[in-house]
Amino acid sequence: MPDAANTVRLNAALANPKEDIASLDALEQHLFAHRYAIDEIISFGPSIDPAKATEERGQAYSILERERQELLCSAETGALLNRLTDNEALLDDTRAAQVRVLQHDRASLVDVPSDEQAEFSRLTVEANDVWRRAKAANDWASFEPYVDRIVMAKRRFAGFKNPSADPYDVWLNEYERGTDCAVYDRFFARVKECVVPLLSDVRASKRKPSHAVVDGAFDEARQWRVADDLLKVEGVDPDALWLGRTEHPFTGGPGVGFVVIASHVYPENLLSNVFSMLHEGGHTLYEQNVNPAYRFTSLKGGTSSGMHEAQSRFFENYVGRSEAFATPLLEILKRHFPGQLGRMTPFQLYMAENCAEPCLIRCDADELTYPLHIMIRYEIEQLLFSGEATAKDIPGLWNERYKSYLGLDVPSDMLGCLQDTHWSDGDFGYFPTYALGSAFGAQLKNAMVDDGVDFDGACASADLTCIREWLRTRIWVWGRAKDAGELMEAACGEPFSASYYTDYLTLKFSSIYGL
Amino acid sequence: MPDAANTVRLNAALANPKEDIASLDALEQHLFAHRYAIDEIISFGPSIDPAKATEERGQAYSILERERQELLCSAETGALLNRLTDNEALLDDTRAAQVRVLQHDRASLVDVPSDEQAEFSRLTVEANDVWRRAKAANDWASFEPYVDRIVMAKRRFAGFKNPSADPYDVWLNEYERGTDCAVYDRFFARVKECVVPLLSDVRASKRKPSHAVVDGAFDEARQWRVADDLLKVEGVDPDALWLGRTEHPFTGGPGVGFVVIASHVYPENLLSNVFSMLHEGGHTLYEQNVNPAYRFTSLKGGTSSGMHEAQSRFFENYVGRSEAFATPLLEILKRHFPGQLGRMTPFQLYMAENCAEPCLIRCDADELTYPLHIMIRYEIEQLLFSGEATAKDIPGLWNERYKSYLGLDVPSDMLGCLQDTHWSDGDFGYFPTYALGSAFGAQLKNAMVDDGVDFDGACASADLTCIREWLRTRIWVWGRAKDAGELMEAACGEPFSASYYTDYLTLKFSSIYGL
Repeated sequence: MPDAANTVRLNAALANPKEDIASLDALEQHLFAHRYAIDEIISFGPSIDPAKATEERGQAYSILERERQELLCSAETGALLNRLTDNEALLDDTRAAQVRVLQHDRASLVDVPSDEQAEFSRLTVEANDVWRRAKAANDWASFEPYVDRIVMAKRRFAGFKNPSADPYDVWLNEYERGTDCAVYDRFFARVKECVVPLLSDVRASKRKPSHAVVDGAFDEARQWRVADDLLKVEGVDPDALWLGRTEHPFTGGPGVGFVVIASHVYPENLLSNVFSMLHEGGHTLYEQNVNPAYRFTSLKGGTSSGMHEAQSRFFENYVGRSEAFATPLLEILKRHFPGQLGRMTPFQLYMAENCAEPCLIRCDADELTYPLHIMIRYEIEQLLFSGEATAKDIPGLWNERYKSYLGLDVPSDMLGCLQDTHWSDGDFGYFPTYALGSAFGAQLKNAMVDDGVDFDGACASADLTCIREWLRTRIWVWGRAKDAGELMEAACGEPFSASYYTDYLTLKFSSIYGL
Repeated sequence: MPDAANTVRLNAALANPKEDIASLDALEQHLFAHRYAIDEIISFGPSIDPAKATEERGQAYSILERERQELLCSAETGALLNRLTDNEALLDDTRAAQVRVLQHDRASLVDVPSDEQAEFSRLTVEANDVWRRAKAANDWASFEPYVDRIVMAKRRFAGFKNPSADPYDVWLNEYERGTDCAVYDRFFARVKECVVPLLSDVRASKRKPSHAVVDGAFDEARQWRVADDLLKVEGVDPDALWLGRTEHPFTGGPGVGFVVIASHVYPENLLSNVFSMLHEGGHTLYEQNVNPAYRFTSLKGGTSSGMHEAQSRFFENYVGRSEAFATPLLEILKRHFPGQLGRMTPFQLYMAENCAEPCLIRCDADELTYPLHIMIRYEIEQLLFSGEATAKDIPGLWNERYKSYLGLDVPSDMLGCLQDTHWSDGDFGYFPTYALGSAFGAQLKNAMVDDGVDFDGACASADLTCIREWLRTRIWVWGRAKDAGELMEAACGEPFSASYYTDYLTLKFSSIYGL
């Protein structure tokens, strides 16, 4: 006699698969349109929207998010996805992957009340606007209550999603499936074990690479032309890109054919522009090179925050800060600043890019100290979620840690805990993926070299085709159809391991500093 | 015994008004979010979207439009709106106006099959993209099939909307309620009666104002600074505006706090930038000054195409091309081009702005010949809708009419029938509102002067506050809550009459040309 579960299976088998597939396609169309609109709204919000757009943008965003949630979480959609899951054998690979991703997306939203979700969307739009003004005015106090409200909401939402798990673990897993505090604690312990003694040796070393060769004031208009040239070398498709301006650089992807990069240039910091652009260009390559067949489906876009960051930091660091790439990079820089840079050598540029010198701004950090910036944010987020700290404690916690880990005095919150946009957007649990992505990149680089890619040759010639092709076929085309873990294992022939990252850092900085 | 209609009324009276009002508010929220997303998508489409965004943009746009249509046209919404109409006495003025506008919007869509509407949205996004490339390549043939497809679709849609009316009349009424071919035939006959003999006298006159003083090449970056200054004088709120670049200037309004102007500058045509900016600034003032209480409702935005164009052409022509405004305008121009324009007098500028010289490009036309450009488009549209012509005939019809009405040989379609974006967007029946809007403006100007507004004084001092306040309180704040006809009658104390326009043209050009 069939039990209840078997009855459900029986009903599922009786459904009309053709009709269900048509319903799946229709569902994906609606979800696509909402995602496109939301991505466009949030990409342009902090880059081109005028100041007074905030309230209407927040309202539109929250209603569209709510419609998306209602569509995905309706009982009808749930039943449809369950029938399709039960009949997976009847689906082609793409649709089977769509169903898996939709089930995952639905599960992460279905228990969150849509009123609260909509309220939260509105809150983050407002908080982002307040943060932008707070940063400009060095005014933590005005932003502080928003951080508390956002953390409180994120804790509540975590409870809806998974009442038995630690709230911060829920969000770590949300941004990077399979991770939690235990995973990151182990990962950061490995990183710390490597970076802290290495940084101490670096500081004690008598060899002191200098960035004096890139000091000076560099015309902004010409810096934007440098940005165009870098994106070209990187292989970004200019016909599928809009490049705009904002305080905190980011990449958004309304479509495979429509990626938004918003960035900034500072006259006194030429390399900040160079590495921001290579970084955002890496995100862009991922978005632009997803299988075109996924364009109108939930498989569009990157599979996880860590994997996205692996691509951006791959082009920023493994390519951009390599000795081989210094030659073509210098050519580009000299093209636009012949007077100021005419006498520089590629080796001088390489050294200037890789001074391991603690600095206040995460985005401007060298490769070695970068993960320490992330650890500081990770530790503060843990304290906020455990209730051991609230927003008013953040400046103190921040400044203390910058002193103890990086040896720096933080002169103002503008250069301290107000520097990043993430918390205003509600992205708690996101920062750790930045360090993880860097570590993915080291392993990916190792694997592509093992596969015969002439990495240094490609960098030296500024023809990055073979590097792009390796990443495109193994990572980018898959969109969200495979998890980061699956992709890493398939691309590298083994699961993720942090040792490639720590080996890379040790080797690179030992050589630069003659350790 | 109650008949069927009475039963409906009876049921309506039994409904729960409080719940219905909450449903109305929820409906408006959803419609707002879709409108916001759609307006943002179509405003940025032709200005900043990269080339490869077209297909995804078209898809997203068409799905969002379809959702909007389905929401507005559902039986449930119909029943709700009917109950609210029947209980209008229970509604405040704003909600009563919302219900009227929603009933109107619903009626114009309810009989159009949503599949066809969605298909049409996709078609116009594609057609606009093809048009942009066709114009650049002077290639009418590539655009031609789209025009036929769009006209065919518009004829079909007109049949759904009002099967007993002439299809072109349906669209004229859509853009400007209360108009049809009979109305416009009469209007254009009055205009022709005035303009044709006046133009003939102008041509025969020995007095020849010259635009030689503004000939030359004007740096583009400085022209953009002129644009900023003009928008400031006009009174546009810069915190609720994004100013971008495109081939065909336009204004879009995702929000009261978020208006998009996209425009262009040409080095060889300084005045084109001046008048484009004043024109789009007029549209912007209308959008920004709608009653803030209407922001999230269907009352947001301008009431009709003609009334919108009345505002843009008011600032372009009645203010911008006035003798009084020549003084502050010249000050702005000299600020940015002191070397090139240092010796010009305001009277020379006034003459240069008002040379009544037939030209090929509608947007660059002087006030006198402008309505002839519109008449040509109106006549061609009539022929297309009556089936007397198809798209392949357009270049011939166009060039013939430019020869006979304006005495010009059209050297290429790029400077002829490919110049305007409207047909690619599906906006047949829209052009006539441009001439009507110009005529509204003359009557509005007359009425504000009668009300004691020191029009010339305001123009001469570049402090346009009193002009803006008059228009704001009588036209702008009302959004869509009142029809163009109602607004004109309330503002002017009498219904619309074309005579103010023909009087204005006669007086102005007789004086300039010493007739």
